[in-house]
Amino acid sequence: MTGSSNPADYLAEHDERFTRELLEFLAIPSISALPDHAPHLAAAADWVADRLRQAGVPTVEVLSAGGIPTVYGEWLAAGEAAPTILVYGHFDTQPVDPVELWTDPPFTPVIRDERIYARGASDDKGNMLIPILAAEAWLQTVGSLPINVKFLFEGEEEVGSPHVEEFILAHRQRLACDYVVSADGGQWSEDQPNLLVGFKGLCAVEIDLVGPNRDLHSGQYGGTVQNPIHALARLVASMRDDQGRITIDGFYDQVITPGEADREQIATIPQDDASYADGLGVDELFGEPGYSTLERAWCRPTLEVNGTWGGFTDDGVKTVLPSEAHAKITCRLVPDQDPAMVAECIRRHVQQHVPPGVTATTTISESGARPYLVPGDHPGNLAAGDVLEELYGSAPYFTRSGGTLPICSVLREHLGVYTVIFSFALDDERAHAPDEFFRLSSFRRGQVAWSRLWQRIAETE
Amino acid sequence: MTGSSNPADYLAEHDERFTRELLEFLAIPSISALPDHAPHLAAAADWVADRLRQAGVPTVEVLSAGGIPTVYGEWLAAGEAAPTILVYGHFDTQPVDPVELWTDPPFTPVIRDERIYARGASDDKGNMLIPILAAEAWLQTVGSLPINVKFLFEGEEEVGSPHVEEFILAHRQRLACDYVVSADGGQWSEDQPNLLVGFKGLCAVEIDLVGPNRDLHSGQYGGTVQNPIHALARLVASMRDDQGRITIDGFYDQVITPGEADREQIATIPQDDASYADGLGVDELFGEPGYSTLERAWCRPTLEVNGTWGGFTDDGVKTVLPSEAHAKITCRLVPDQDPAMVAECIRRHVQQHVPPGVTATTTISESGARPYLVPGDHPGNLAAGDVLEELYGSAPYFTRSGGTLPICSVLREHLGVYTVIFSFALDDERAHAPDEFFRLSSFRRGQVAWSRLWQRIAETE
Repeated sequence: MTGSSNPADYLAEHDERFTRELLEFLAIPSISALPDHAPHLAAAADWVADRLRQAGVPTVEVLSAGGIPTVYGEWLAAGEAAPTILVYGHFDTQPVDPVELWTDPPFTPVIRDERIYARGASDDKGNMLIPILAAEAWLQTVGSLPINVKFLFEGEEEVGSPHVEEFILAHRQRLACDYVVSADGGQWSEDQPNLLVGFKGLCAVEIDLVGPNRDLHSGQYGGTVQNPIHALARLVASMRDDQGRITIDGFYDQVITPGEADREQIATIPQDDASYADGLGVDELFGEPGYSTLERAWCRPTLEVNGTWGGFTDDGVKTVLPSEAHAKITCRLVPDQDPAMVAECIRRHVQQHVPPGVTATTTISESGARPYLVPGDHPGNLAAGDVLEELYGSAPYFTRSGGTLPICSVLREHLGVYTVIFSFALDDERAHAPDEFFRLSSFRRGQVAWSRLWQRIAETE
Repeated sequence: MTGSSNPADYLAEHDERFTRELLEFLAIPSISALPDHAPHLAAAADWVADRLRQAGVPTVEVLSAGGIPTVYGEWLAAGEAAPTILVYGHFDTQPVDPVELWTDPPFTPVIRDERIYARGASDDKGNMLIPILAAEAWLQTVGSLPINVKFLFEGEEEVGSPHVEEFILAHRQRLACDYVVSADGGQWSEDQPNLLVGFKGLCAVEIDLVGPNRDLHSGQYGGTVQNPIHALARLVASMRDDQGRITIDGFYDQVITPGEADREQIATIPQDDASYADGLGVDELFGEPGYSTLERAWCRPTLEVNGTWGGFTDDGVKTVLPSEAHAKITCRLVPDQDPAMVAECIRRHVQQHVPPGVTATTTISESGARPYLVPGDHPGNLAAGDVLEELYGSAPYFTRSGGTLPICSVLREHLGVYTVIFSFALDDERAHAPDEFFRLSSFRRGQVAWSRLWQRIAETE
């Protein structure tokens, strides 16, 4: 117990120590992609577990998810009638390459201009430490939390959480909650909050076309047999029309078209197509007619060839009619598209549209992910929205990501719960890049926000 | 002078020595692609020059074409009223890789089962030696040739004759002739002669498409900007219809459609589409409707993508929307298509059909070549056809090649003369491959054929 009478005062009084602790946490090089950093991941997990205990969380364990430590903690003294939320975050980081572009060594955290520079500062150590500090503030002043809180911090997020599904299945009862609040995510800007309510799903296929049984002399055989590259071009061209609509039968069948309310909400979010195009170096944007750029990116499924190859690709001229041609395709999916069903639509399309004279094989990747969408009026989003509006002075945008956060759909599938994104990272903080940083102002605002969020959830329940 | 009273007897009597001389010629490793074999090319040129002198050809010189020796000889004592032909052949060979697949060392010629095995045996040393022996047979028996004969033997054919055009321009007057007879070419089979009357031309272009200024995250940007691979697929698909007709405006403008007589002649040539497809491992053939397989290969221009690349092509999944996509294209051309004009049609097509959101660059290669067609009733072909019919007992097929023999169009352009193909190589003799061989029966038949050809030309003039 300290002299502070409420969580907010406690947070302000202990600001300097909290910052020091974050620097200590950031000094652990917990890079999950590098196997020889396993001891650092274990050290980071232990650091997190100790920090939870120090905050006053009574039950803390370091569990294993496929050999990788995962930290679990719980404070459940609010009783069965009170809501229970599960806090999610991760203590692993991206690699540091190219390390020569860092101003300071990536695991020697420094503060400059009210910013903490270190790998993992923004993504996600700075953000995941925040709810632990908020818990301490409640437990060390009020002596309790206003709701039941469980903590789940993983060490494999940056490598695609390969064991998280297995872990969640193995600990389903322990992880049971009303919903999840993720400390991994971000805000729109320093002045404008947002609630990230959707992520796209993913499915991946590779198409391999084989024509003649060997590369042929284009003079001797050209014009008499199908050329797999031409066949592939026709096949790829058959998958989207000239305006970008996907023309694969059944592709859009499960798509929930954004409603008027969704579209109006998105329309309130500033988006300057001219500067967006300019930043990408293109003369014009291109996409499905009838939708705005943000709608295309957030609410409409996509099909993109990620790579293609076939025949002679070195310098000079080689008059070959190649035996094979290949394309790798990924689709970003929206609710309620099922990755397996979309992949099957593509497979069927390939079989039905493959030009004569070649054999097509469609290989469906196992790395599919379901799309995720949490209702904007989910109680967690309402509570989070209220807190954000108080703190920023303006209502949050409801945004989506064209990217994929598999954890959200895994938690939805296996725990039956939604995830509310409540993080204070900003887009310019160079996550995954050299000189990653986190704003001290965000670190402080986040602590107040989490502290108020729990209060608000308790009040509105 | 010997005891023989006529060229035919002379050839038969000296058969053993001629074979021995061919073995000696084949032992010189005159590989034009390898710079350190330059001394062997010089040795081969000297060998050819000496052999011409030994045959009785009075004027023989080793000239230089861009540093590579070229052998020139002439016997012009038939007088100005008599026809003059220029004999063409080459004394350089292909490399020998993979050398481990040879039964005997490639430059240690051996005779097995009436076949001479060595690199260059069929292509082209065996065939180019033949007219020298025929000349000797005439000069050592009759004491003269029935027509004026010039000889041009080059040492760069296997590397694309890079200096031959310059050489021909520099020696235009000396090389003046009524037409050329090439000892490089081939017959249909041991039982069936043919006259090769056409080669396709060539033009090559590369298409480079650039979209966004960097590879993009397919989740964040997918669906909002043009993907260069999709744009390239549409562009390539726009160049041929689904049946294989080329749909580039102007592409067929200069094409001389084969006449009824041509098509009837081609129709007499056996072609088994089922076994052709089977040999290539394809279920069905594919090509421009309205033409047979041989017509497609010989008389119709083609457009084939030789290679394509773009984006991520390694194992696994990478969700990238690539910045670039590329295709290399070559066209095989028929009379009277002009490589520069066809390339320009493609360039224009690309500019007119490039999908929105990408920038296209079309690079036209300098390695264009004009198509070549000698009339079937050209006096040289008539004479050659008569001789072949006498020797084989059946009239020759008039065939064409989908390949390109730039020397023919160069000679046509700069000397204003046609080239008649009169060679005794056969397709199964593994030219350019390990265990290349030449049949002794072809070597002998060729000598008689050349000897009679000159006689026949003199008679029909």
